[in-house]
Amino acid sequence: MAEARASADAAHRLMVRVYWEDTDAGGIVYYANYLRFAERARSELVRLAGLDQAALLCDHGIAFAVRRCEIDYRAPARLDDLLCVVTRVERLGGASIAMRQEIFRDETPIVGLLVDLVSVNRDLQPVRLPPEVRATLAQWQAGDRPAATAPAA
Amino acid sequence: MAEARASADAAHRLMVRVYWEDTDAGGIVYYANYLRFAERARSELVRLAGLDQAALLCDHGIAFAVRRCEIDYRAPARLDDLLCVVTRVERLGGASIAMRQEIFRDETPIVGLLVDLVSVNRDLQPVRLPPEVRATLAQWQAGDRPAATAPAA
Amino acid sequence: MAEARASADAAHRLMVRVYWEDTDAGGIVYYANYLRFAERARSELVRLAGLDQAALLCDHGIAFAVRRCEIDYRAPARLDDLLCVVTRVERLGGASIAMRQEIFRDETPIVGLLVDLVSVNRDLQPVRLPPEVRATLAQWQAGDRPAATAPAA
Amino acid sequence: MAEARASADAAHRLMVRVYWEDTDAGGIVYYANYLRFAERARSELVRLAGLDQAALLCDHGIAFAVRRCEIDYRAPARLDDLLCVVTRVERLGGASIAMRQEIFRDETPIVGLLVDLVSVNRDLQPVRLPPEVRATLAQWQAGDRPAATAPAA
Repeated sequence: MAEARASADAAHRLMVRVYWEDTDAGGIVYYANYLRFAERARSELVRLAGLDQAALLCDHGIAFAVRRCEIDYRAPARLDDLLCVVTRVERLGGASIAMRQEIFRDETPIVGLLVDLVSVNRDLQPVRLPPEVRATLAQWQAGDRPAATAPAA
Repeated sequence: MAEARASADAAHRLMVRVYWEDTDAGGIVYYANYLRFAERARSELVRLAGLDQAALLCDHGIAFAVRRCEIDYRAPARLDDLLCVVTRVERLGGASIAMRQEIFRDETPIVGLLVDLVSVNRDLQPVRLPPEVRATLAQWQAGDRPAATAPAA
Repeated sequence: MAEARASADAAHRLMVRVYWEDTDAGGIVYYANYLRFAERARSELVRLAGLDQAALLCDHGIAFAVRRCEIDYRAPARLDDLLCVVTRVERLGGASIAMRQEIFRDETPIVGLLVDLVSVNRDLQPVRLPPEVRATLAQWQAGDRPAATAPAA
Repeated sequence: MAEARASADAAHRLMVRVYWEDTDAGGIVYYANYLRFAERARSELVRLAGLDQAALLCDHGIAFAVRRCEIDYRAPARLDDLLCVVTRVERLGGASIAMRQEIFRDETPIVGLLVDLVSVNRDLQPVRLPPEVRATLAQWQAGDRPAATAPAA
């Protein structure tokens, strides 16, 4: 759960360890499991932005649903690897969010993802992002902040 | 989803194929995944008994929660194995059900489970099994039906 | 594991039941789990084509690795849903296979996938598809067979 | 991956966050997933003991296989919960290790596990624990160290 907000490039970073549960008989991480890692990173980004997904769902009936996902598998990860999931908000629409995520082992790119999310109500119908959610997510948007900004704790 | 009700011994049988998702880097089925197989079998037993878990949850707010589980790992299963999950209702209490499950590959015992379930409401508090649920589950109880009944195909 | 080869359109079909393990607290199937369903379907297509993945891996050191995946989430699936995964071979290259997969609940499209696979050796380097593997996969290629062929049962 | 070795009681602690992937349509953590949390904790204990599971498997062909598992589900965990997995080595035999694991949310006991492991070779046959592995695991054994020992960092 180590994470940091690198303010210069507005990217969120989450470290993820590869456990037995993540691997398959090929000795590498099973292809669907990178989507689990990516979702953990998005959840932590949202949490770090001060948003509480459980409360959003419970109190406002709002959740983030994935509409589309593109995944490029560049190199395999293996048992015990320590991966870094780098997440950036690429685009913020009325009810939609596009995030770009890159998973690295040290400097080696493992998997790249482009994820289109939409905020939905309990009936899974799109609803506009509440302004405060929008504002907090905007800070993770690439290029939205001066490179000189001091790094956050 | 091939299944059959062998009436002589009141056991439910579900065939389960081992896919890449089920295995780990050791080349065998990951130990937690047998609990997924076992739950699929219990769900199919309940469905075959004419019960609808989604409706039970939605309309009556009743679900089956696992309280305790004992698992014996006897032999490993591997990619592409075709397993048979044999489920018997061992004991029916007011709000509780004990099920014994054995997972085989052909005649080889792979995993044995003893699962204690309790019927709970939305607040996860125990509630008595509705009489009709109890009655339908009782037919899967070992010894509840005459041994002379011809075995199903 | 019900499946059929609809020869007219050369599509493979696998029925998949949604169990508790597949859902999340939003009440719908967790987004990564459709990739598990899709992989089961590809494995069954390969098996039906007479290929044995475990033997391919064990004897020839060949496996199919996913290089890229595009997923469109069209509608949510829920607990107990019975889904149909329809798989077609879209393109066969020297070492690569592109498959198009559509997941339906009855007539409702749930998820669409475009999956690029590559045949790799134990070091995960691309290796040419063995001719017999190529030939067997070709029969699942859309448009490769006369439309007049009678549909299989 | 926050963890600490509380030397006074020789217990290993791993913090685990509950993500969407861990929950099911009942709104709680799916019962099999606690076994994933427990295995992560055992892997981290082993890593902290200076053992490298990937190297053990690769170089010595030794892995730890679960032979038996008892799980008591005491209270449900939910999305976003931060859980603590407390692991103790309960018994060290020639080739066997018994571990007791308790999963808490703050002071609330969520799940208790008793896990019997055995060290196996590539053919999954039991092999004696190498003396250095035994020695490093012994330090996590309850009661094996004086209560006065200063806590590790």
